[in-house]
Amino acid sequence: ISSPITEMDQDNLSVVLHSAGNLKLENRSIPEPGPNEVLLRMHSVGICGSDVHYWQHGRIGDFVLKKPMVLGHEASGQVIKVGSEVKHLKPGDRVAVEPGVPREMDEFFKSGRYNLSPTIFFCATPPDDGNLCRYYVHNANFCYKLPDNVTYEEGALIEPLSVGIHACRRGGVSLGSTVFICGAGPIGLVCLLVARAMGASRVVISDLSAERLQKAAELGADFPLQAQKESPAELAAKVQGLLGCLPEVTIECTGVESCIQTAIYATRSGGVVVLVGLGSEMANIPLLNAAVREVDIRGIFRYCNTWPMAITMLASGKVNVKPLVTHRFPLEQALEAFETTRQGLGVKVMLKCDKQDQSP
Amino acid sequence: ISSPITEMDQDNLSVVLHSAGNLKLENRSIPEPGPNEVLLRMHSVGICGSDVHYWQHGRIGDFVLKKPMVLGHEASGQVIKVGSEVKHLKPGDRVAVEPGVPREMDEFFKSGRYNLSPTIFFCATPPDDGNLCRYYVHNANFCYKLPDNVTYEEGALIEPLSVGIHACRRGGVSLGSTVFICGAGPIGLVCLLVARAMGASRVVISDLSAERLQKAAELGADFPLQAQKESPAELAAKVQGLLGCLPEVTIECTGVESCIQTAIYATRSGGVVVLVGLGSEMANIPLLNAAVREVDIRGIFRYCNTWPMAITMLASGKVNVKPLVTHRFPLEQALEAFETTRQGLGVKVMLKCDKQDQSP
Amino acid sequence: ISSPITEMDQDNLSVVLHSAGNLKLENRSIPEPGPNEVLLRMHSVGICGSDVHYWQHGRIGDFVLKKPMVLGHEASGQVIKVGSEVKHLKPGDRVAVEPGVPREMDEFFKSGRYNLSPTIFFCATPPDDGNLCRYYVHNANFCYKLPDNVTYEEGALIEPLSVGIHACRRGGVSLGSTVFICGAGPIGLVCLLVARAMGASRVVISDLSAERLQKAAELGADFPLQAQKESPAELAAKVQGLLGCLPEVTIECTGVESCIQTAIYATRSGGVVVLVGLGSEMANIPLLNAAVREVDIRGIFRYCNTWPMAITMLASGKVNVKPLVTHRFPLEQALEAFETTRQGLGVKVMLKCDKQDQSP
Amino acid sequence: ISSPITEMDQDNLSVVLHSAGNLKLENRSIPEPGPNEVLLRMHSVGICGSDVHYWQHGRIGDFVLKKPMVLGHEASGQVIKVGSEVKHLKPGDRVAVEPGVPREMDEFFKSGRYNLSPTIFFCATPPDDGNLCRYYVHNANFCYKLPDNVTYEEGALIEPLSVGIHACRRGGVSLGSTVFICGAGPIGLVCLLVARAMGASRVVISDLSAERLQKAAELGADFPLQAQKESPAELAAKVQGLLGCLPEVTIECTGVESCIQTAIYATRSGGVVVLVGLGSEMANIPLLNAAVREVDIRGIFRYCNTWPMAITMLASGKVNVKPLVTHRFPLEQALEAFETTRQGLGVKVMLKCDKQDQSP
Repeated sequence: ISSPITEMDQDNLSVVLHSAGNLKLENRSIPEPGPNEVLLRMHSVGICGSDVHYWQHGRIGDFVLKKPMVLGHEASGQVIKVGSEVKHLKPGDRVAVEPGVPREMDEFFKSGRYNLSPTIFFCATPPDDGNLCRYYVHNANFCYKLPDNVTYEEGALIEPLSVGIHACRRGGVSLGSTVFICGAGPIGLVCLLVARAMGASRVVISDLSAERLQKAAELGADFPLQAQKESPAELAAKVQGLLGCLPEVTIECTGVESCIQTAIYATRSGGVVVLVGLGSEMANIPLLNAAVREVDIRGIFRYCNTWPMAITMLASGKVNVKPLVTHRFPLEQALEAFETTRQGLGVKVMLKCDKQDQSP
Repeated sequence: ISSPITEMDQDNLSVVLHSAGNLKLENRSIPEPGPNEVLLRMHSVGICGSDVHYWQHGRIGDFVLKKPMVLGHEASGQVIKVGSEVKHLKPGDRVAVEPGVPREMDEFFKSGRYNLSPTIFFCATPPDDGNLCRYYVHNANFCYKLPDNVTYEEGALIEPLSVGIHACRRGGVSLGSTVFICGAGPIGLVCLLVARAMGASRVVISDLSAERLQKAAELGADFPLQAQKESPAELAAKVQGLLGCLPEVTIECTGVESCIQTAIYATRSGGVVVLVGLGSEMANIPLLNAAVREVDIRGIFRYCNTWPMAITMLASGKVNVKPLVTHRFPLEQALEAFETTRQGLGVKVMLKCDKQDQSP
Repeated sequence: ISSPITEMDQDNLSVVLHSAGNLKLENRSIPEPGPNEVLLRMHSVGICGSDVHYWQHGRIGDFVLKKPMVLGHEASGQVIKVGSEVKHLKPGDRVAVEPGVPREMDEFFKSGRYNLSPTIFFCATPPDDGNLCRYYVHNANFCYKLPDNVTYEEGALIEPLSVGIHACRRGGVSLGSTVFICGAGPIGLVCLLVARAMGASRVVISDLSAERLQKAAELGADFPLQAQKESPAELAAKVQGLLGCLPEVTIECTGVESCIQTAIYATRSGGVVVLVGLGSEMANIPLLNAAVREVDIRGIFRYCNTWPMAITMLASGKVNVKPLVTHRFPLEQALEAFETTRQGLGVKVMLKCDKQDQSP
Repeated sequence: ISSPITEMDQDNLSVVLHSAGNLKLENRSIPEPGPNEVLLRMHSVGICGSDVHYWQHGRIGDFVLKKPMVLGHEASGQVIKVGSEVKHLKPGDRVAVEPGVPREMDEFFKSGRYNLSPTIFFCATPPDDGNLCRYYVHNANFCYKLPDNVTYEEGALIEPLSVGIHACRRGGVSLGSTVFICGAGPIGLVCLLVARAMGASRVVISDLSAERLQKAAELGADFPLQAQKESPAELAAKVQGLLGCLPEVTIECTGVESCIQTAIYATRSGGVVVLVGLGSEMANIPLLNAAVREVDIRGIFRYCNTWPMAITMLASGKVNVKPLVTHRFPLEQALEAFETTRQGLGVKVMLKCDKQDQSP
């Protein structure tokens, strides 16, 4: 069903953000791959909260849009051309795209934490273009071949899944861990999936929305907890009540100050709070409580070294991300898709970039 | 159905090893718990390969039987009396028994590796008596209350499960790990269960016996591999062929020299070989191959800090050990049960020590 | 010169805090050691900031003085009587006292983090008596024999040294680390000594006091940095300027909010901020900055597993704590000694509890 | 005194191994740096045991000399030309050369263990040329600028020092560690220097040669131990006798089977044996003893992520490698230098490659 590899459009329909609030579909030229790059025909690209945030505000923290930028960084596609030095990929290969590519061989890269390299290229982070388009060129070393039994959408979902993997790794989730996840949005849900796959014995997940918690329960949360007007200490006590103990790991996915406070109170002495949600620059938190109980506070910045492993997990069927996709739109309806995401409908909205093949 | 807590027999039927080959059922007196101890009415006690080895040979390595010793260390039972200082248990509680109890507060205990404490008490390791009997006294701090939805047999199986947990922890099994397990006996199978629960993406398990591999496949092994007359290097190549790569972690459960050699050749550079099976004192191994590929070799000695976590895993249903029990005998038929184990029939033989309640 | 072991006073002069501001020298009875305990003739006991804080305020956080309590927890002395079960010590042994003794064999103790055990006994933390007295009984497993070439005062200084060891361990200080220490009081100085001994290549230490920084320079600080009216970001920039890079580990010893802010800004991406100083319950900090640079925030609560290692370091001469002692008083002048400490004079004030032997 | 950067010889005198036993000085052409490379005027290059081994045997394990190869990989020099993409170096910079440069961005490189990458370039490992010559081109990302107070010879010695750093890191040497080093050759001595710098409290070092042990004592070994005809168990007992306990870390630098056996017997339960010396493919070792005491066996393959840190240690004066250099020869006398090394005279033989500047 898929397009013949050799057949290519003349134009490269792309989702371009010109300034805050000003998102356009426009045709760009099709790029040529450099020696270590591959040209991809994009297939499935998920919309992330950060895409919507750039659209609405034109910036995230210090990253400010200064010139038009293609959005999109949760992506998979098919290789249609390879650079002269590329050996592990060939035209026709189906690949998932890791959007961060280090530019320098600095101390962070050499020591295996390339996500922290300050000069890293990252799709759809100003000024770097993303891949919400028909044709896209990427460093071949950060494109990973998908086995036949992993779909393009699963491939695209490796990006949010990687956030969950990195968060759970940083939190030290392992066999028998009790875990508390604050927030049941897309990122909370992938953290849930990963925590379970890593052997967490029991997972509490909290949210304001009953609907989101319903989805979390379907995905395996042991204790969905609908937050209401509790104080942080009260909510922490409820978590303890559900588990019969405080959880060893708390994964905070909201960025809201009161939730970070809850996360600290709710975590067992010697445990870890992982900060995944991004809030405001300054936060007022019960730091003394964390310090004297040796509750470590660890943030995450994106992820590193997750794609190969995520692919084996998906191929083996040990993690199922398919239920996360709730909406699909053809690339031509990208603005509608963004509006759907903005309204917080469903979990994950997927854009289908290949005109000939809109299958999952 | 269970016996009233207050009702106690006059005698304490016990499985006592007098010397190599000389195993007897005999009545012993019922002990009194000290201040930090509990008296248990034993319910289910599994037979371990080491019990059989003591019976057959009167020794394991430096541990030599010098006086009659009660066998058994995979055990669960019901508290019927508590010592004066015991606070977290009360008569009627159903508990799993951790058989190793450190006697000294030495550097190993203080640093969380109490299994390495040289003076540790351990059930059924000479000269310490085990718990294959009707009534048994144990340190209350090493008895763990079972939730209602965890059976006594599951409680007894925490002991072999703990070997698997400790082995997988020492091997660093985590999300997406590829794992090779040598040997599909009871210990190989618990390693399999644990590796899967920890998120291993794919597990190869090898054995000479097709029947054992059949059981392994039922328990979730991705690639059962029947070893035949291959050299270690050839078998390692087969493992690589099945996985498409070398596994990151190999868990060696046979103790056989050629299997240890295979384990080293089969493990990916930077990976880990865990030695679980006990072989002869000296082994001729391809140490240079391991060293220059930074394949670490790590043994395990029993386990530590596994019971609480194992209980939460069993309670949550995330690990299922029930299929491991293939035979059951009342305590009175202990000699028949030992003979069954000696012949290698089935996987786990369970002795039922409570006359009134022989349920799982 | 030292007192004959068998000769004992009739009275037990003790430094007792009755209520905030109400510190008295009074005679108490000499206790008898239990089976696992030893009776010590105290020799040298340092005064800690927390002793002074209890004296001034009657509480630290949730620990509130409710009945008279003996102060003191930085201590060494001589064994004069041993309990019936004690094997590794005998009368005449010179020992350092680890003031925290876990009361329960809980999950924290079993896993090697006994300092986090919520029911731990701790000298001079209400309601537990300390050892600023002539005769004191302690759990023998937490008394460590001093070699002949380690003085009593060095033995007493193992307590503050342990804070430095635990802080540097938690911070992951290792060969070649660059380290920033906020605060050059007694704890900042022991962190400095330990960081250097662990192989830190360069250490910046900041304080408001030129005099304290002078001491730090004598003890090996590479870059003493006198803080003035800089903002946290400005002070962080100065640290970077001195080192030519951001430090990998920052050890915050003041508890002051602006210093914690500085600590975060000053730490390299992927590094660690260790919180040693205790401040107010809530703190307003640049958490987002820490999170997106994966700067981990880790508190410490006292220490664990430090005494044996500290003794070998002192015995080998590889750490020199002797310059920390700037004042000495006989036990009879304890109130004067406390007043000296309260005024922040010198670094460490030592009380000499043995009437016959007031040597270091 | 040093040569003007712009002035260059016409020829490139190089130490070339043509076949086993056939080592020649010959002129080669001066290479041009590629975009990411720098051209260096070599200054100081140490001779390593592996250089001598290739000269004598034409191979090390699977690495077989098949065409003429320049020897040398312990090197420093001056940048005289930079490639078009090089930003962090400029002509005139003095640099130390890390001889291993990964060619592929594979899983090992991405995860920070690039030394394990199977396709890595490595100086003077067939078929890759080394840098024992006048002019040499290297990847700029693996050349590290030396501060003014670090000499070229110190720069060259970072290579063997890195072996010691990697060995001590893999062994987990830290504050208060007791360490046993088998073998007092150049590598044993750098392990000693590093172990001390990392905070080891006491170090035993063994060798057959009294002269080598004398050097070890000068460099700070606490207990030099001259091995004679002891069995491995006897030698282990002597180590224990000297320390009063078994060491936590043993670093085996000989590769001799009986020494590996000693290393295992001599290491404390829960400790680590690091295999640095390379022996024969198969080794007969007391594996059961290691396994049941959880003594881990870890090899090292070269090193990774050591240069920047080694430079800060040398610049700060916290490690002193200068006493390791016992012989110096101008490049023209390379054959004499190799013969000196072959005879095991002194510790480190240094070749001076810059005609105008033969200073340390």
